[in-house]
Amino acid sequence: MSDQTDVPDPGQDENAYVLERKDVSAILYAVDIEDRDQLTKLMEPLHAADIADLLEQINAFDRSRLIRLYDREFDGDILSELDESIREEVIAVLKPAVLAEAVRDLDSDDVVDLIEDLDDAQQEKILEALEDTDRALVEQSLAFPEYSAGRLMQREVVMAPEHWTVGEAIDRLRNATEDELPTQFYHIVLVDPRLHPVGNITLGKLMRSRREVPLADLVEETFQVIPASQDESDVAYAFNQYHLISAPVVDDEGRLIGLITIDDAMAVLDEEHEEDILRLAGVGEESALSDSVRETTKRRIPWLAVNLVTSILASLVIAQFEAAIAQIVALAVLMPIVASMGGNAGTQSLTVATRALATKDLTGANVWRVIRREVLVGLINGVVFAVVMGIVGILWFGSPALGYVIAAAMVVNMVVAGLAGTGIPIVLDRIGIDPALASGAFVTTVTDVVGFFAFLGLAALVLL
Amino acid sequence: MSDQTDVPDPGQDENAYVLERKDVSAILYAVDIEDRDQLTKLMEPLHAADIADLLEQINAFDRSRLIRLYDREFDGDILSELDESIREEVIAVLKPAVLAEAVRDLDSDDVVDLIEDLDDAQQEKILEALEDTDRALVEQSLAFPEYSAGRLMQREVVMAPEHWTVGEAIDRLRNATEDELPTQFYHIVLVDPRLHPVGNITLGKLMRSRREVPLADLVEETFQVIPASQDESDVAYAFNQYHLISAPVVDDEGRLIGLITIDDAMAVLDEEHEEDILRLAGVGEESALSDSVRETTKRRIPWLAVNLVTSILASLVIAQFEAAIAQIVALAVLMPIVASMGGNAGTQSLTVATRALATKDLTGANVWRVIRREVLVGLINGVVFAVVMGIVGILWFGSPALGYVIAAAMVVNMVVAGLAGTGIPIVLDRIGIDPALASGAFVTTVTDVVGFFAFLGLAALVLL
Repeated sequence: MSDQTDVPDPGQDENAYVLERKDVSAILYAVDIEDRDQLTKLMEPLHAADIADLLEQINAFDRSRLIRLYDREFDGDILSELDESIREEVIAVLKPAVLAEAVRDLDSDDVVDLIEDLDDAQQEKILEALEDTDRALVEQSLAFPEYSAGRLMQREVVMAPEHWTVGEAIDRLRNATEDELPTQFYHIVLVDPRLHPVGNITLGKLMRSRREVPLADLVEETFQVIPASQDESDVAYAFNQYHLISAPVVDDEGRLIGLITIDDAMAVLDEEHEEDILRLAGVGEESALSDSVRETTKRRIPWLAVNLVTSILASLVIAQFEAAIAQIVALAVLMPIVASMGGNAGTQSLTVATRALATKDLTGANVWRVIRREVLVGLINGVVFAVVMGIVGILWFGSPALGYVIAAAMVVNMVVAGLAGTGIPIVLDRIGIDPALASGAFVTTVTDVVGFFAFLGLAALVLL
Repeated sequence: MSDQTDVPDPGQDENAYVLERKDVSAILYAVDIEDRDQLTKLMEPLHAADIADLLEQINAFDRSRLIRLYDREFDGDILSELDESIREEVIAVLKPAVLAEAVRDLDSDDVVDLIEDLDDAQQEKILEALEDTDRALVEQSLAFPEYSAGRLMQREVVMAPEHWTVGEAIDRLRNATEDELPTQFYHIVLVDPRLHPVGNITLGKLMRSRREVPLADLVEETFQVIPASQDESDVAYAFNQYHLISAPVVDDEGRLIGLITIDDAMAVLDEEHEEDILRLAGVGEESALSDSVRETTKRRIPWLAVNLVTSILASLVIAQFEAAIAQIVALAVLMPIVASMGGNAGTQSLTVATRALATKDLTGANVWRVIRREVLVGLINGVVFAVVMGIVGILWFGSPALGYVIAAAMVVNMVVAGLAGTGIPIVLDRIGIDPALASGAFVTTVTDVVGFFAFLGLAALVLL
């Protein structure tokens, strides 16, 4: 067996692929006693991604000591795998010579990914470490907009003219030097004389075909061309939707300029999901576990401030009914229930709608059916919980009228929750605002305001 | 150019890859006038995944009419791509002969994916349509637990003994019949005499090497073996973490029994994220946009019921302070603000902790540092908003004492939110409960109860 057995335990237990605490301790102990040989021995079996995780999980002091002791063993891939939040810190700690060597080993798309979020001084430091040709490739990629296919693609593509035969392609591949080919490739892209991609051929098919077969006979059925300006989230969607392994990237004239492979698309899909979840929760979308207290505080304050404003809005509604509450204190006891149930139902509708928009499942063809469904579901669940709460109200406070009021308010608020939870993200999406970012605050404002108003207003009408 | 130009517009606009509403209308019109030729012509350029999306977006009546008219053109891949919620419905509509032909074209892993969630009668119907050897393969895979690597893998693997040379491998591949090889493959798995996988070789390297080179010289550096019993979410994690393209699957004795490719791992990653988001929002994790009103209502009721119980709990806390509220109605006006801010801050901490647990970034090595950070962030944000709310309280109600009380309660609740938001998911994870599933209800219960208790309790102490 190869040394994959030393990688974090890939067994079937709960903690598959988690770095063992004792391994981390052993590594930190080697750092403590400054035993470079022991450190190198312990780190050697770890994948770059695992080393990056390790660096993220230890504190800044241990991190800088570890990196200094590890020194020349430090690999460029570790930098690629690091969270942006500590990448700058790590680059600052690395000796210039170590940094230069680490970066020179990377593919052009990895260098782009590595430096695009660094400050100018650090960017320049890394660009200087590159050879001239590599530097030119990286700078070309950086000219594309952030989060575009152009940034994501690698420049190295294996292509062949559409009139070639299998034999010609195989000979060309066998005679190419190491530098001419990407480190890994799975397809040959067939191009027409104007460099427009016309099809993909898998290496498996190429190998199994006779030399005289025209390449054009072997193209795959599924083939997608990605415009360089396309948003990377759409790239990830296309790979997932059409089960692509690699896809050629073209410029505005449709000419082949690069290639995106599925592993990069998978990484984008993972990041996009992460951002969606963090946005829905009102945490800055670039939050990382290794952020400092200061960064974390700063990222979260805006969302809490929005929430403060919306909850003051709800309080203003309550303030309109001070007289009613002064007479029947039970209203103050029960009113949070109506608001909370509405908020919950609204969040349910909202999450489903936001996800469906992100996955392109909610379109013009079904938007009205979905809205109708959510409102109906709100109505039915509203009635169910209205009955329950009506009974609770009667039993608890001995007042059937109070029971009716809370029941009616519950139905109203749950229907509004279904409508607002679906309608708000759809409207935001139409006017070009990310629904995951802003819908939550709007929807809970609506359900709070409507909940308090319906309950207290009905109570003032019926009970006073 | 190939016909990918007719696939949903892959441009750089907002709606890349969304089915155009006019295309859907044209297809439904062809169904209305029962024009089979026109329907076939309109559907022909669409990828199976797009046809599945189309079927999900139209209503059940149109769906069954479309399928009946499309008839023998119906492809097995469409079934694979369909949401589970309408897959059973579609299978029931398909003629037995059409279903049999559709299913026979699929790879074994796709058939497994297709039938694992069907009821027994429909499962049997599809198994009967398969040839005997395929049926045996599918039944073997179904013997593995749900959501395991064994269910996910394909049975067809290209392997070679470790002592072979490049020439032997190439000859073997060229002489293999179409049936012996998977439709797509990118690596050769090297095995020892006991069938244990020892390394991966990319086809690119194989093609470029001289015939006499031993295969063992060409193995890739990154190589991961997946146990068949491993959870599919860990499989997806490994592919993403180690940038795998394919990985061999082994049985309990470490013998090669299958292969997982990155496109399947990417689909799992996508599903897992979807489930996490839906779980965090308290929507049943298998929710789909095509669910009926009835299914949707049923899925959401349990979470609303939990929320009802927790909000009644919060009301019971308020009820303890009825006397105080009767005297100072302003308490009723302000109390939702304290609870809401705590709930929001708690959800922020909770989401970060839940995600970090899911991505294996929160481990024994950094758990205390993360908890300390969240509590500190809660304290700082608590103080910031305490000052703001204290001033609002004084200006609005003209009572400095009320301002101090709400400020103090805010600080207390935000600290508790940071602690509960981080601690509860960590504890749930340790005792083996999915934190995404249950943390939300617990955390908001804590912040509601603490928020109301701290605010009303302090008010009763200080103001009365």
